[in-house]
Amino acid sequence: MLNVHLVPHTHDDVGWLKTVDQYYYGGESLSLLSVLSLSGPHAGVQYILDSVVEQLLQNPERRFIYVETVFFHYWWRNQPAAMQTSFVNGGWCMSDEATTHYSAVIDQMTLGLRFLNDTFGPCGRPRVAWHIDPFGHAREHASMFAQMGYDGFFFGRLDYQDRDHRRINRDQELLWRASESLEPPMADLFTGILPNGYNPPEGFCWDQSCDDPPIMDDPNLEDYNVDDVVKRFTKIAHSQALMYKTNDIIMTMGSDFQYENANLWYKNLDKLIRYVNAQQANGSQLNVLYSTPSCYLQELHRANLTWSLKTDDFFPYADDAHNFWTGFYSSRPALKRYERVSNGHLQTCNQLEVLGGPWSREGLFGAGDSETLRRAMAVAQHHDAVSGTEKQHVANDYARMLAVGWQHCQVVVSNSLAALSGSSADRVYCDHLNISACPLTEANKKFSVNVYNPLARPVLWPVRLPVNGCAYTVVPVSKATQQVRKDRGYAVNELVFQARAPPLGYTTYFVSMIQNGPPEASVRHGPPASIQNQFVKATFDPATGLLDSLTNLETEQTIRLKQTFYWYNASDGISSVSEQPSGAYIFRPNSSTPFLIPSSGRAESIQTPEVQEVRQQFGPWVSSVLRLYRDSRALELEWTVGPVPIEDSLGKEVVVRLDSSIRSSGLFYTDSNGREVLQRKKDFRPTWNLRQTEPVAGNYYPINSRAFIKDDEDQLTLVTDRSQGGSSIHNGSLEVMLHRRLLYDDVRGVGEPLNETSDVFPLGLVVRGRLLLSLAPPMLAADAHRPLAQENVLQPLLSFTEGAPPPGTLLEFSGLQAALPPAVHLLTLSQWDQDSLLVRLEHQFQTRESKKHSVPVTVNLQKLFSTLKVVGMSELNLSANQWLEEMKRLDWRPNLDGQPLRKPPRDPSALEVTLSPMQIRTFVLRVVRR
Amino acid sequence: MLNVHLVPHTHDDVGWLKTVDQYYYGGESLSLLSVLSLSGPHAGVQYILDSVVEQLLQNPERRFIYVETVFFHYWWRNQPAAMQTSFVNGGWCMSDEATTHYSAVIDQMTLGLRFLNDTFGPCGRPRVAWHIDPFGHAREHASMFAQMGYDGFFFGRLDYQDRDHRRINRDQELLWRASESLEPPMADLFTGILPNGYNPPEGFCWDQSCDDPPIMDDPNLEDYNVDDVVKRFTKIAHSQALMYKTNDIIMTMGSDFQYENANLWYKNLDKLIRYVNAQQANGSQLNVLYSTPSCYLQELHRANLTWSLKTDDFFPYADDAHNFWTGFYSSRPALKRYERVSNGHLQTCNQLEVLGGPWSREGLFGAGDSETLRRAMAVAQHHDAVSGTEKQHVANDYARMLAVGWQHCQVVVSNSLAALSGSSADRVYCDHLNISACPLTEANKKFSVNVYNPLARPVLWPVRLPVNGCAYTVVPVSKATQQVRKDRGYAVNELVFQARAPPLGYTTYFVSMIQNGPPEASVRHGPPASIQNQFVKATFDPATGLLDSLTNLETEQTIRLKQTFYWYNASDGISSVSEQPSGAYIFRPNSSTPFLIPSSGRAESIQTPEVQEVRQQFGPWVSSVLRLYRDSRALELEWTVGPVPIEDSLGKEVVVRLDSSIRSSGLFYTDSNGREVLQRKKDFRPTWNLRQTEPVAGNYYPINSRAFIKDDEDQLTLVTDRSQGGSSIHNGSLEVMLHRRLLYDDVRGVGEPLNETSDVFPLGLVVRGRLLLSLAPPMLAADAHRPLAQENVLQPLLSFTEGAPPPGTLLEFSGLQAALPPAVHLLTLSQWDQDSLLVRLEHQFQTRESKKHSVPVTVNLQKLFSTLKVVGMSELNLSANQWLEEMKRLDWRPNLDGQPLRKPPRDPSALEVTLSPMQIRTFVLRVVRR
Repeated sequence: MLNVHLVPHTHDDVGWLKTVDQYYYGGESLSLLSVLSLSGPHAGVQYILDSVVEQLLQNPERRFIYVETVFFHYWWRNQPAAMQTSFVNGGWCMSDEATTHYSAVIDQMTLGLRFLNDTFGPCGRPRVAWHIDPFGHAREHASMFAQMGYDGFFFGRLDYQDRDHRRINRDQELLWRASESLEPPMADLFTGILPNGYNPPEGFCWDQSCDDPPIMDDPNLEDYNVDDVVKRFTKIAHSQALMYKTNDIIMTMGSDFQYENANLWYKNLDKLIRYVNAQQANGSQLNVLYSTPSCYLQELHRANLTWSLKTDDFFPYADDAHNFWTGFYSSRPALKRYERVSNGHLQTCNQLEVLGGPWSREGLFGAGDSETLRRAMAVAQHHDAVSGTEKQHVANDYARMLAVGWQHCQVVVSNSLAALSGSSADRVYCDHLNISACPLTEANKKFSVNVYNPLARPVLWPVRLPVNGCAYTVVPVSKATQQVRKDRGYAVNELVFQARAPPLGYTTYFVSMIQNGPPEASVRHGPPASIQNQFVKATFDPATGLLDSLTNLETEQTIRLKQTFYWYNASDGISSVSEQPSGAYIFRPNSSTPFLIPSSGRAESIQTPEVQEVRQQFGPWVSSVLRLYRDSRALELEWTVGPVPIEDSLGKEVVVRLDSSIRSSGLFYTDSNGREVLQRKKDFRPTWNLRQTEPVAGNYYPINSRAFIKDDEDQLTLVTDRSQGGSSIHNGSLEVMLHRRLLYDDVRGVGEPLNETSDVFPLGLVVRGRLLLSLAPPMLAADAHRPLAQENVLQPLLSFTEGAPPPGTLLEFSGLQAALPPAVHLLTLSQWDQDSLLVRLEHQFQTRESKKHSVPVTVNLQKLFSTLKVVGMSELNLSANQWLEEMKRLDWRPNLDGQPLRKPPRDPSALEVTLSPMQIRTFVLRVVRR
Repeated sequence: MLNVHLVPHTHDDVGWLKTVDQYYYGGESLSLLSVLSLSGPHAGVQYILDSVVEQLLQNPERRFIYVETVFFHYWWRNQPAAMQTSFVNGGWCMSDEATTHYSAVIDQMTLGLRFLNDTFGPCGRPRVAWHIDPFGHAREHASMFAQMGYDGFFFGRLDYQDRDHRRINRDQELLWRASESLEPPMADLFTGILPNGYNPPEGFCWDQSCDDPPIMDDPNLEDYNVDDVVKRFTKIAHSQALMYKTNDIIMTMGSDFQYENANLWYKNLDKLIRYVNAQQANGSQLNVLYSTPSCYLQELHRANLTWSLKTDDFFPYADDAHNFWTGFYSSRPALKRYERVSNGHLQTCNQLEVLGGPWSREGLFGAGDSETLRRAMAVAQHHDAVSGTEKQHVANDYARMLAVGWQHCQVVVSNSLAALSGSSADRVYCDHLNISACPLTEANKKFSVNVYNPLARPVLWPVRLPVNGCAYTVVPVSKATQQVRKDRGYAVNELVFQARAPPLGYTTYFVSMIQNGPPEASVRHGPPASIQNQFVKATFDPATGLLDSLTNLETEQTIRLKQTFYWYNASDGISSVSEQPSGAYIFRPNSSTPFLIPSSGRAESIQTPEVQEVRQQFGPWVSSVLRLYRDSRALELEWTVGPVPIEDSLGKEVVVRLDSSIRSSGLFYTDSNGREVLQRKKDFRPTWNLRQTEPVAGNYYPINSRAFIKDDEDQLTLVTDRSQGGSSIHNGSLEVMLHRRLLYDDVRGVGEPLNETSDVFPLGLVVRGRLLLSLAPPMLAADAHRPLAQENVLQPLLSFTEGAPPPGTLLEFSGLQAALPPAVHLLTLSQWDQDSLLVRLEHQFQTRESKKHSVPVTVNLQKLFSTLKVVGMSELNLSANQWLEEMKRLDWRPNLDGQPLRKPPRDPSALEVTLSPMQIRTFVLRVVRR
């Protein structure tokens, strides 16, 4: 008997062509053209939930799965009475996998699953992860899902060659070993590829947005078609069964925003089941049933087979030979940066909410909360949010939500810092320091700067403030420096000093102007021969003025290093090979050879004790600053791109390329969601014989926080400040896509070209960012890039008060008794319930990447906090919706596996927890204030 | 307090862009362009009913009204359990008013209402007639609705000038006195004009097919809009109240094919009611409630006002200055004819089902039924069916249904005639006699013809059969004639003889060929000077060869009479005045001066004792035959038009024009649904000061079965064989539109130009028809045209058997003991229940139109039938869904009325019923066979 499991479902983007709220209510219906898109004219999620629940009540055999908890939550809070239903995935949304940071993904999953837990208890806990739409799949996501206790994972999109290959080999269901560091089966996840993306089989779509004929079973009427339907369905089911291993197959009966009128679906599905199964009386071996992914998964498990083992990931995703979805890795770079910054803000807000105690939420500066930003961040993880594949007005709405969230958090932070410091001075947050604007520092001759460090270890951080004076004292730093300012803002100078902040705490700096007027620092025209500090030296080619080499002075290693900007000419779709243009999703250069953006020759340099900078202009719309701070081990490459010109009617995809003397042999490395690193090989896929059809786009991979190339001696690592796409197209070369401005929609539904302008940037968005370059021997590289990347994600938060700190102000504070060991990252510290905290500790090194740090490390939780005493502790799964000891997952056997299962090292005592490389442990701690 | 009654409803065309079955199931979704039309992409009525019933169960305060019983019936028979709901109108469909015949309308209303009665009992009986969509409104429809017991009538479409005028005068609700013959209030009907056609007020459409914003009432979300919605609604309600008389106003909350997903509507309506009424706490005088038309009508009645009295009708309908919906009066002339023929077939079938007894349904020739044709005819009354405003494939489907219905009826007829005659000979129906094709008469030298007459009085009828011999004997007629055949079919000759058939019975003729070869009748080239019989003489102009005069030899009156064909050049919409093209609905000639279709000069004539014919050709695609049968008082004008050429890219609307010497003074007369006649005046409307903007189209009116012009001496009456549009544009002139072939859609939703072709007519549809012309003094004219029109509607049914009738065959039969009096028409005779019949008797004369017949007349029901004995009798309302004595209608007072109410004359005895002019009386008779 072949069992066909029909899974009714809907797919509800948390913002895409419409904003989240518009999608919830079904407001702002789309224009004619968009009516044709999958999301339909209405796309009102409230109706979908109403309609489905109604239909479920009618027939207890019917099933439905629901994904995006944010919508369910909106709906739920408007329900008069409790109703029970069934969930998959359970995150606040269905996160993007290519451009999200693991920290934000864990947060958004926790948020959604906690709501389900609070509302339904254990029965509402999803057992299956369901990422049917994201555009490729990250290994780190699979790892996280495994650690969250999911029994299996289903998705719809993978490379078309991969899919074809797997169909032939009946290899569409597999065991994904998603970590090289974690002991199996900790990061093993059973993974299923759905048969029709996430659509119903052809001819069986009965949503109101579909055109397939309904089952017409009244023999009195002209169009009776039951026999035809049964025949077609039977054929499809048997064809599908040939591509899977067991006698249970799954069909997704739904698609984008379907089930607004659930009756259409259920009425026809009821009939389909009845008529197809009626054929069993005639000897048919086909059995159709309402099902869920969990139920289907149970049957697969019961089959007791072995499954092929996969250890790489599902990037890049191509739906055809010239359609690589590698553009969105870089789409909307400003939004991607804002999302990353907001994650840091949220962590800071969470921490200070804990450290400041109840006064944080309701204090001197009014009522604040972290929940608003938490929800905004959770929404921003959606696969059409941070991915950059939404319409412009929707992107604006995501940004608006983050901004509102941050406003709520600022109250928490102000309240908390007031409570901790004892100062009730008004606190100002200069949110536009990235464009050198801060009215308080520009207008005041005396002001105080609070530097809060959300890391669990001390940090040295270069503070840069726009000022109008030319000499300042900064206490507790002896002497301040400053330099000429450029670009934006009205201040004439920029004050730079190195701040040092304690773990999970702050230091206060008092700044006073001692001299007005032009800056002391001499600006020299033309680049210097080199810039250097005690750790790093960079030299410049006297002929071109461009970067020429990079030296690690500690390890005494040097590489040739050239930095150039290029733009790929985006395909406009007019081509005999393929009509695919570049767009929000898809990267398709017209030619594999990009256009050089030549140096204008204009360069200037500044050298002060605090910082050395070489500023160079490349044509009218690209510039860079190579920058070395006094105590930094990384060379900073600040890039500014835009407005990208389009008067020539050519879409442009701008990259920065670093060409080095490293013999990289076609290999390069990128991280997965900011955690573990995967090896990439040009024109190669680990699990099938690639036929490469796009020499550039087909070699692009997501870079969430770092990428590197290496040979036996040298590793050049790039740490990014946001998610970007990148590749190594040539040996020794690393390129990162910085900005994209395109003139055509790429026909994947968004219906807009990616052509960002705004009131502030009417001629086109200008984007600025930083890459941190570090050179080291391969076995020491992680020691640098791991903390460097965390510093970048969790940057210090600066807040300002006018004048000197009032007497009695506590000028320095640390929430920790001592810094955590270098390998340990405090991933989460947030209020859980009134007396309890959610704490996540993470071992931030992979196995074998650091001689020093890739070993287990133990932390004593009781000795962690300076102001809180831990009076109880329980360990949870990664998503904090289940006690760890109760987390029992289905076991799946790989078809080749010699590796013995090893338990992670035992904790020395109840409050001393040991972390293995890449392990994250999640605790609820019951605490009292000391 | 102003009460706003919200009426949720849907409008479900019984076939239009899709067939009835397609609409029921929602099959064959429409193409992109049609998605924009009102009927939406799905238009699946099954879902609408599912969805609505579901929603109704959730909130007992909600209301819904449903119209088209055909769909409800489809749905009901698939329901597992009884559910109760509420109905308006209740007909099998919402009939067209301009192109339907009263006989078919009464039948379709009876069918729908009977189903409701059988299913729900008296609670399901609709109290309100609801014709929101038909394109203008017939007085006879109002009269029928009144006689069916409706308390009121609502509609949406009326002339825009009329509407504006009524809005200003608060005269949108009125009392329609719908008969000049019936005693008030027998045909009085309270009539309401809906405020927004049948749509919701602007901005308040919440169906899935609409774009208006939903009520977003969660203050946490960005788009909260309750205040705005309440404000907009309040403004609209108060504006609307200014245009009506009472403090109760109605809003139709729905439109075409809406409520497929009822939740969208109800959810927002619930909120609207809650939020608007919440303002009462702040002093608002606005109260919104769920309502029905009946409930609204009760409130109007309770207001106890007087209402203006209207005695004309609502034709023609124009939605703007150049948009007169007068084209559909003539659209699809072949379908209109087929519908009319099918009505005759259905009446014959009904009668023979009664007369033949139970053997009719299950007899010698198998199982037959009248129900299939009854339903097909009921569907064909829909305002996009016989109206001709459906898509071509839908028109085909209507015709198919009628054909299938007739096949079922043929079995009934064969069984019945076998039972009545005692002959079991195979009986053949030559359905293509209209194109002179009948294999049986063409192939056989001996055959029998059964002529069944469905009228309650004897008939003389010219039988015309295609044959291949040249001389025949016809028994019981002494000598047969024949003439040369032309046009279609393969037979060389046509046999013509005058058949005489008894009331409600048949005569059998035996035909034998006595001579083979060419016809005896001599065909002369050119027209004769005149043709004449004992009653009529027509003369021809020797110069042109065309008709020149018409004489009634009995009354010795003569008029000049010229017959010409013209075509109007249909507007293509390219005009500075208006972009409206002519189309299925709209007649808009490019110029008021039509193009003459000149006589080709080719003419021939035939003169035999049975018939005299003058055949004339007008150009290549129009021809006519002027024909006078031996015993006829009417001159027959047979026209053949088509294929209308379109190679010149000009759409053509072909008319025949009769120009006479009658001094008609701008007046002419047309009938209403085949019953009472209304006076028309050129460029004039009885109830408002017309600004005429379309000199031709704005003077067109529907002609269902007759039109006339007259002066003091002469009345020229035209009896048609189908519904057609016509006018009198010049004094003494009557024109009738025969055929239309158009190249543009007229943008009223059908989305196709009216350009009929078919497999049989690939170059364009050829249509043939007959007009019967009769000349008489005005006070004698009705004596001729009333029976003439009924003969045309209820033509004899011919059936054929090979060879001579078998010995023992009963060659003649009448179901009546005697013919009914000339004024009385047997409108209905059909099986009702096993032992009972439905009988309708009609006085077929208006008051004052006939000296002889416009008086009450009495019929004894017991002496009616020859084979049936009446053992019980009950009188019903016109639609047979209520005992007449229980029919209590709301009384409404007109604002000017001196006429005293008079009771109709009392019946002499229980079984002797008296009919006043134009009265129809409906009985259920319990009968036993004698």
